[in-house]
Amino acid sequence: MTDTHDNLHRDWDAMHHDQPSMATDATRDTEVQAAWDRSVAAHEALAARPGVTFQADEEIVIVLHPGFDTLDAIGPHYFLSSMLGATIHLATTGEPGAPVVSAGGLPLTPTIALADVADAPTVLLVPGGDTSVLTNDPHAMTDIRRLGYAAQVVASVCTGAIALAAAGLLHGRRATSHWSVRHLLAGYGATPIDERVVVDGNVMTAAGVTAGMDLALRLVGRLRGDEYAQFLELGAEYAPEPPFGTGTPGKAGTELTALAQDFFATVEHGLRAPAT
Amino acid sequence: MTDTHDNLHRDWDAMHHDQPSMATDATRDTEVQAAWDRSVAAHEALAARPGVTFQADEEIVIVLHPGFDTLDAIGPHYFLSSMLGATIHLATTGEPGAPVVSAGGLPLTPTIALADVADAPTVLLVPGGDTSVLTNDPHAMTDIRRLGYAAQVVASVCTGAIALAAAGLLHGRRATSHWSVRHLLAGYGATPIDERVVVDGNVMTAAGVTAGMDLALRLVGRLRGDEYAQFLELGAEYAPEPPFGTGTPGKAGTELTALAQDFFATVEHGLRAPAT
Repeated sequence: MTDTHDNLHRDWDAMHHDQPSMATDATRDTEVQAAWDRSVAAHEALAARPGVTFQADEEIVIVLHPGFDTLDAIGPHYFLSSMLGATIHLATTGEPGAPVVSAGGLPLTPTIALADVADAPTVLLVPGGDTSVLTNDPHAMTDIRRLGYAAQVVASVCTGAIALAAAGLLHGRRATSHWSVRHLLAGYGATPIDERVVVDGNVMTAAGVTAGMDLALRLVGRLRGDEYAQFLELGAEYAPEPPFGTGTPGKAGTELTALAQDFFATVEHGLRAPAT
Repeated sequence: MTDTHDNLHRDWDAMHHDQPSMATDATRDTEVQAAWDRSVAAHEALAARPGVTFQADEEIVIVLHPGFDTLDAIGPHYFLSSMLGATIHLATTGEPGAPVVSAGGLPLTPTIALADVADAPTVLLVPGGDTSVLTNDPHAMTDIRRLGYAAQVVASVCTGAIALAAAGLLHGRRATSHWSVRHLLAGYGATPIDERVVVDGNVMTAAGVTAGMDLALRLVGRLRGDEYAQFLELGAEYAPEPPFGTGTPGKAGTELTALAQDFFATVEHGLRAPAT
């Protein structure tokens, strides 16, 4: 639902800026005005909740590389862009102006080149996808390392954790990744953990694809307060009912899991730590 | 994880087209070849599963209007674009070439103008967001009605259901929408149902935002067979653990729900059926 975003991002400003002219508009509908008043009061009530930071100025960097996974990036983007005042940078590993095409064929327009992102962002988030494109790109790895050392929070979704690991950012850390490659983290000096979201200090890693949304809500709670995140969870009606109940190897059973592990065999092979 | 997409979309073709040249490459790594062979066999095994249609040629139309909700569109896009051979049309209600900016500020590049979409697509999907932009756009409503009457499956996510309803496509149907506006469906002649995904004949409606993923997996099952969808659910590691457990009014409790209902009051007012 856009309402969360709109009201937080645009309407909140509009309410303050437009209110005078609206109030003098003799043709206004009293019902519209009543709805407006209710919404303004609710914004103020949310902002006044204990522990809630309603407006801030986080710098969020989401790395985009060819073959990134759309949902790995957009799931978190949805929740993080709901934080009033936060800036989301879509940072391309390629040419600044060129769209970056996701694994699912969706072109996203980046806002900045990864190399141009200033040190010390609030959050560096690396989505998964064709992650070997990242690990085989020395420039991208240099920038991920540079930003990762300076970021307040380092985060990954799905196979993005392997890029963090290959950059040396997960050494000695507990971390997770997509179930089919999670074991590879050990080769990079991390400790693989079979949990949906793993938090180790300032490093947050999520399991496969859809786990990025769980991570993002926890990150919003960390940055803006739990009550803010609870509100977003309700606004997004985030109470999933996976229709088939096959979302983890344990739920899917050995036969389907073995098939999927084989299906992804080339990816798994491409993300192994180099032999030492 | 991109792997699902890549292997299905690109690698599957590449495996057949590139295999000969790879096989004659004397420098190839035997481990890489073994991984490749495992993946090819898994593709073939999945394609051979009972009820699975591995390749087809669905025409999927996702409507994009200014202020659409990114995740409403991208959640389904992720799963539907995994269907080998399906074409996803991002159909703008605006100028054909111009990016459409979502509620969260993300610009997506459309592939076609909604008015130019040919009759009788396989799926017409309307995401939510600033849905009053749609209901106040007579041209868009005409096209949604035209395509909705002819589509094999008509689907909506979140407030997108109100656009379907306003187009007359939900008359006499059971349907759902975002919890905060679901009751409005009655004003358009539909029967509001408090379920996450409601299927009534060829009409599938999802509750708020994240329910679009549940809908999409059920739609994949319908179009490609349940085992195909089960595989995607595992690939996406779709076994969410919402961190706060506030994703429905019932879970969130009366206080937070009342706050959110007020927060969204202007949206709710803007989507009411016109007085008759």
